[in-house]
Amino acid sequence: MHLFAYLKTGPTALHAGGWRHPDAVLDDFLEPGRYQAIARTLEQACFDGCFFADLQGLYDIHGGGFDTYVRRGGQISFLDPMVVLPVMAAVTSRLGLGATLSTSFLHPYHLARALLSMDVLSKGRMAWNIVTSATDLEARNYGMDEIADKAARYERADEVVEACMKLWKSWDKDAFTLDKESGLFADPAKVHYANYEGRYVRTRGPLSIPQSAQGHPVLMQAGSSPRGIQFAARWAEIVFAPDAADDKMQENYRTLKQGIVAADRSPDDCALCVQTTCIVAETDSMAQERADYVNALATEELNMATVSANSGVDVSRLAGSESVADLAKNQGIHEALSMLETVQRERGAALRQTLERRLPNMIVGSYKTVADRLEAMFTSGCCDGFVLTPVMFPGSHESFCRMVVPELQRRGLFRTHYTGTTLREHLGTTPGR
Amino acid sequence: MHLFAYLKTGPTALHAGGWRHPDAVLDDFLEPGRYQAIARTLEQACFDGCFFADLQGLYDIHGGGFDTYVRRGGQISFLDPMVVLPVMAAVTSRLGLGATLSTSFLHPYHLARALLSMDVLSKGRMAWNIVTSATDLEARNYGMDEIADKAARYERADEVVEACMKLWKSWDKDAFTLDKESGLFADPAKVHYANYEGRYVRTRGPLSIPQSAQGHPVLMQAGSSPRGIQFAARWAEIVFAPDAADDKMQENYRTLKQGIVAADRSPDDCALCVQTTCIVAETDSMAQERADYVNALATEELNMATVSANSGVDVSRLAGSESVADLAKNQGIHEALSMLETVQRERGAALRQTLERRLPNMIVGSYKTVADRLEAMFTSGCCDGFVLTPVMFPGSHESFCRMVVPELQRRGLFRTHYTGTTLREHLGTTPGR
Repeated sequence: MHLFAYLKTGPTALHAGGWRHPDAVLDDFLEPGRYQAIARTLEQACFDGCFFADLQGLYDIHGGGFDTYVRRGGQISFLDPMVVLPVMAAVTSRLGLGATLSTSFLHPYHLARALLSMDVLSKGRMAWNIVTSATDLEARNYGMDEIADKAARYERADEVVEACMKLWKSWDKDAFTLDKESGLFADPAKVHYANYEGRYVRTRGPLSIPQSAQGHPVLMQAGSSPRGIQFAARWAEIVFAPDAADDKMQENYRTLKQGIVAADRSPDDCALCVQTTCIVAETDSMAQERADYVNALATEELNMATVSANSGVDVSRLAGSESVADLAKNQGIHEALSMLETVQRERGAALRQTLERRLPNMIVGSYKTVADRLEAMFTSGCCDGFVLTPVMFPGSHESFCRMVVPELQRRGLFRTHYTGTTLREHLGTTPGR
Repeated sequence: MHLFAYLKTGPTALHAGGWRHPDAVLDDFLEPGRYQAIARTLEQACFDGCFFADLQGLYDIHGGGFDTYVRRGGQISFLDPMVVLPVMAAVTSRLGLGATLSTSFLHPYHLARALLSMDVLSKGRMAWNIVTSATDLEARNYGMDEIADKAARYERADEVVEACMKLWKSWDKDAFTLDKESGLFADPAKVHYANYEGRYVRTRGPLSIPQSAQGHPVLMQAGSSPRGIQFAARWAEIVFAPDAADDKMQENYRTLKQGIVAADRSPDDCALCVQTTCIVAETDSMAQERADYVNALATEELNMATVSANSGVDVSRLAGSESVADLAKNQGIHEALSMLETVQRERGAALRQTLERRLPNMIVGSYKTVADRLEAMFTSGCCDGFVLTPVMFPGSHESFCRMVVPELQRRGLFRTHYTGTTLREHLGTTPGR
């Protein structure tokens, strides 16, 4: 079983009420120490890794402005994860470290350089969560009028990753000589131009960075649309998938693995991890009380605004029967749009009330109950592991690590120590092409 | 007096022989520990700050390829400084931390975000060394055919900095409420769009990052051309200038300060620091022996290639009387081109021999002799401080901190403790506009 932690450079992850919980720490989300402490906790629990979800902007879809997100404490990335990850790397030696970086705004030379630098500095523990971005607000921050359509975004993403893969092979592993006596520093025959020419991006190289302990960063991806799954099948070694009913997750799992085989890769070369929010306590009833407590802290306004942010549709102005796909234009996450369509169809006039109460799916129970559910999903072909999304920082990850991980270890489902040092060794994968 | 340390994410700074010195450490230039140790040393010596020189590529101007730079160990940035600086921030609390980032390749939204994130994470210690880039090789890495001309590069640079300044003011200092009881997280009236529209760049904002302890990063600049000085006069709080004869430095100093006044700023709001390479030892004769020793380690091939890299002219093909400005096209640093023109004019057929022996100017002497020279430059209106460029890592910075800094402190020329915590407090400046 593989375990990853979902992180944010701010106090809110998916649950709109989390930051208001008495156990949520609010005074250190701009400090290195917060992230270093979380990294140490996760490494002590032998997690495969962690990654920062991210947005290149401030959500202002709901009500046509950022008021609700700012006033009510929505999911905001207060710091660039790429400056936070190095401080976490400096206090750990095994934990995988992932950054979400978009292929739509930054040039592949920059992406390749920043990511491989982190991979070298962390001795082979970096992952790139590849996103194509799905909001007009991010496009506007980067000087465009709106985000490109999904087909164009993914065509560009394929090129950006192809270019990065070439740049990452600029220096052969044995290029360095470092011979002070003869004055020979490295062998120029072992350094190569990339000369990548695509329709969307060009880069010459070489990158001035040697390969890392794991070669190059692990690629991860979370696209849930058919095109996203096709992209993941080609490239991803970790896929981060939405939770759903078991039969739906099993179908998603088979679809992805078939796609991987169709892309001429081994199904074992990509771990599908389901996004899971757990509320864990000593007993089921205590966990249920805790869930009820935190759910009551989520404001209706922010619950709705979160749906707007994820779907790309301003649900504050949604009357009832409009086509949400038309309203979203090129914005929105596939899964959030599907959810919104379903709620609209099933609930009709009660749409608004449903969205006001919309919270993440949660597994609520004692550490044994939570472990039971994770074991059932893992052993029934729903997934290869989980991405744990916290309700509050740092408590959610701490209680999972202290209570659920030992239970999973007792059952022989999860490692009790690391056998390798790189993230790719933890995963046992080989890269996509 | 202000002191900054010049750093590289590799074993070579300006001196081609440094990495071959027996005291140069070569086994840790890809490790966080190397940079953390240097940062601690500099902070213990009360340096204002340090910064990484950088290049978005591998020099391949000399001989039309990167062979000499790779084989002979030229100045190569092996890691992205923006991932190295956070690990240095994590082990220090006063030292200023500078990154060289180009305005020609990355979008201002990204630059503003990465830089302010580092500034917040370091509690107000970040500096941005603003460059417009002067090589075709960097342009080619970013998908262009060649670098733009200087005028266009500086027009764009002005816009990029204007956009960053607007983005950096997205969140007022008192925007956060963080009131768990009422569920009020922050005040949306205190968060602002940037709405920047220039000829070259556009960005909407808001940036999702609050202001730092010093407001926003300190701006630094090293342009030595008239246009570069004009740019510095408008924006820079630190100017990093070439060393030269005293009267030339005094003239440069007056020119810059007049420019600052013309830009409606106080001359005290910008510190001019001269780039200085020191070889220091117990006695003058021991220092001279050390200088001779390390100079003998610099290969003629790499000395010449360094001139090619800095001037943008492939001097391996320079016959004698061609116009070096024409050969450089839009490439090259103003100062390096001027030097090359002078050498060409004065030396004629002996041009090649001169370039083969071309090494950085150095102050060589006992710690008292070095302090005498720095004091003379500082008190005679050449500069407000120095940027120390090392010959070898980490020894050059260590010996300067151990031997020269205490001598400067004894003379009352340099601080013995920090009076503030932010870089802008160390400098005593207010930002440009």
